[in-house]
Amino acid sequence: MTAVPTLLVLDAEPLPRLGRLTGRVRVVHAGADTLATLLPTADVLLVWDRTSYAVREAWPGGGPRPRWVHSAGVGVEHVLCPELVASDTVVTNARGVFERPVAEYVASLVLALAKDLPGTLGLQRKRMWRHREARPLAGTRACVVGSGPVGRTIARTLKALDVVPAVVGRVPRTGIHGPADLDRLMSRADWVIAAAPLTRQTYGMFDARRFGVMQPSAHFLNVGHGALVVEEALAEALAKRWIAGAALDVFAAEPLPAGSPLWGLPGLVVSPHMAGDTVNRWDELGAQFVELYERWAAGRTLLNVVDKQRGYVPGR
Amino acid sequence: MTAVPTLLVLDAEPLPRLGRLTGRVRVVHAGADTLATLLPTADVLLVWDRTSYAVREAWPGGGPRPRWVHSAGVGVEHVLCPELVASDTVVTNARGVFERPVAEYVASLVLALAKDLPGTLGLQRKRMWRHREARPLAGTRACVVGSGPVGRTIARTLKALDVVPAVVGRVPRTGIHGPADLDRLMSRADWVIAAAPLTRQTYGMFDARRFGVMQPSAHFLNVGHGALVVEEALAEALAKRWIAGAALDVFAAEPLPAGSPLWGLPGLVVSPHMAGDTVNRWDELGAQFVELYERWAAGRTLLNVVDKQRGYVPGR
Repeated sequence: MTAVPTLLVLDAEPLPRLGRLTGRVRVVHAGADTLATLLPTADVLLVWDRTSYAVREAWPGGGPRPRWVHSAGVGVEHVLCPELVASDTVVTNARGVFERPVAEYVASLVLALAKDLPGTLGLQRKRMWRHREARPLAGTRACVVGSGPVGRTIARTLKALDVVPAVVGRVPRTGIHGPADLDRLMSRADWVIAAAPLTRQTYGMFDARRFGVMQPSAHFLNVGHGALVVEEALAEALAKRWIAGAALDVFAAEPLPAGSPLWGLPGLVVSPHMAGDTVNRWDELGAQFVELYERWAAGRTLLNVVDKQRGYVPGR
Repeated sequence: MTAVPTLLVLDAEPLPRLGRLTGRVRVVHAGADTLATLLPTADVLLVWDRTSYAVREAWPGGGPRPRWVHSAGVGVEHVLCPELVASDTVVTNARGVFERPVAEYVASLVLALAKDLPGTLGLQRKRMWRHREARPLAGTRACVVGSGPVGRTIARTLKALDVVPAVVGRVPRTGIHGPADLDRLMSRADWVIAAAPLTRQTYGMFDARRFGVMQPSAHFLNVGHGALVVEEALAEALAKRWIAGAALDVFAAEPLPAGSPLWGLPGLVVSPHMAGDTVNRWDELGAQFVELYERWAAGRTLLNVVDKQRGYVPGR
């Protein structure tokens, strides 16, 4: 590399700390409005705002464009447009930063539902002492849908609490069930946990038929993508008591509109897409990008390379 | 044993299932009002109501009395009166039934506080989407006060979630800190968890001085006994933000009166003494008593024998 490379950052607060890269890259900051103009001038694009769909809209067709796009999140459906998929631009993601926080968040929801913490907090507001019986968690069964690092970390975390987990992925392999086992595993599970990438195969996969397969005592959780779930079908399953309860951290439309019926659905916990977001994540995401940049600048193989056809980092 | 032994049951709903003992014991049911009259006629007393202090009040002095008292709970301070302590009557408890449920309950509270689930549920009621940042749980430090089976099971469960636990007991031994380490461990902990028996040494041990030792970011949890805590001191510590939050499942007076300021204290989760109470516990408690009865009737050594001087089952 002869010239100083241009690093374009699609901004979000707080801005990334690029520490060691100071003076070695020319950093240009972009917003959704300036991205299209600046993209052809950049060598590297850091998609620091992981909620924006600006990249899909602004990506240049065949002309000059970044050779590497890094997304500071796990899902990349907000980045991948057909032209980017078809190009030789490499896309990487933040695998390694979010797995454990998401798994802890799932554990917090599963335990809160088993111990009826929402009921306890509701009674506390009314200053009512009403003893209830909690469910034991140990020995219950979880069906984790999604066999990527997040899904596998969720399964491992639940297993540490003596839950019996089963993981379902796109392709059956050692320790991972294939899609053919999904209905059977869902019908036995106490906890069905959606943690799959959003693909053509997974879009809307949790529909009325699948909620109908679940046990009336079972709970459904989604920490993957809102569009995995047919929200009307979940609302119906809760209203008709096909299932005991649910917790959603992701939604088809975010932020969830104030008028959405989901806010007030009995038995449903609504949280604002925060499962993976811990106080220390910005530092971790910055450090991870700096490490990847060092590899890229040295001409070494990048890590966390997304299979652009599939929409996620394959394997392990 | 020549005659059929008389088993007196201090009742609570649902009544114990004594299955295998049918026809082998004469079962007499007592309430708080009839206990004093019936006690001298009984060979065995099953204290099925673990909230009643009736045994302390009704226990006969030196005359005929049960040779064995079993309490279907862990704490026995509601059973032990000086006359019973001085007598040769054996007291046993329900060790083994409540440990894991209590540990799961503690994990549910710790995770809920780390992920601000109370805040999420409060915002949901207002239909407000407000993203917040959760704390990572892994790598945080817990100080578990109480080295009995409950305290040790709490420590083991938190460790499975990659929390770093330290256990404090009455006597230092392998893996257990003594009282001399308490302040130092509390001053470093992210989570201070009270799970000690109620004794002269532990009564009111969590007072203003001890809350003052804790970190401003730390949380206090009590699943042991209400009287371990000076409640006014905890209220002050929360109001003055000496600590970040707390969760109490046990109280000096239960049920907590509707007028108690604790109900409305910001940062405090109040639950109605339910940590150990899972839906399946009655069956487990009944089966445990039947098993102990078989040993007693066969003249074998009882298990879970309480050291009446200390007020709990010693050791392991």
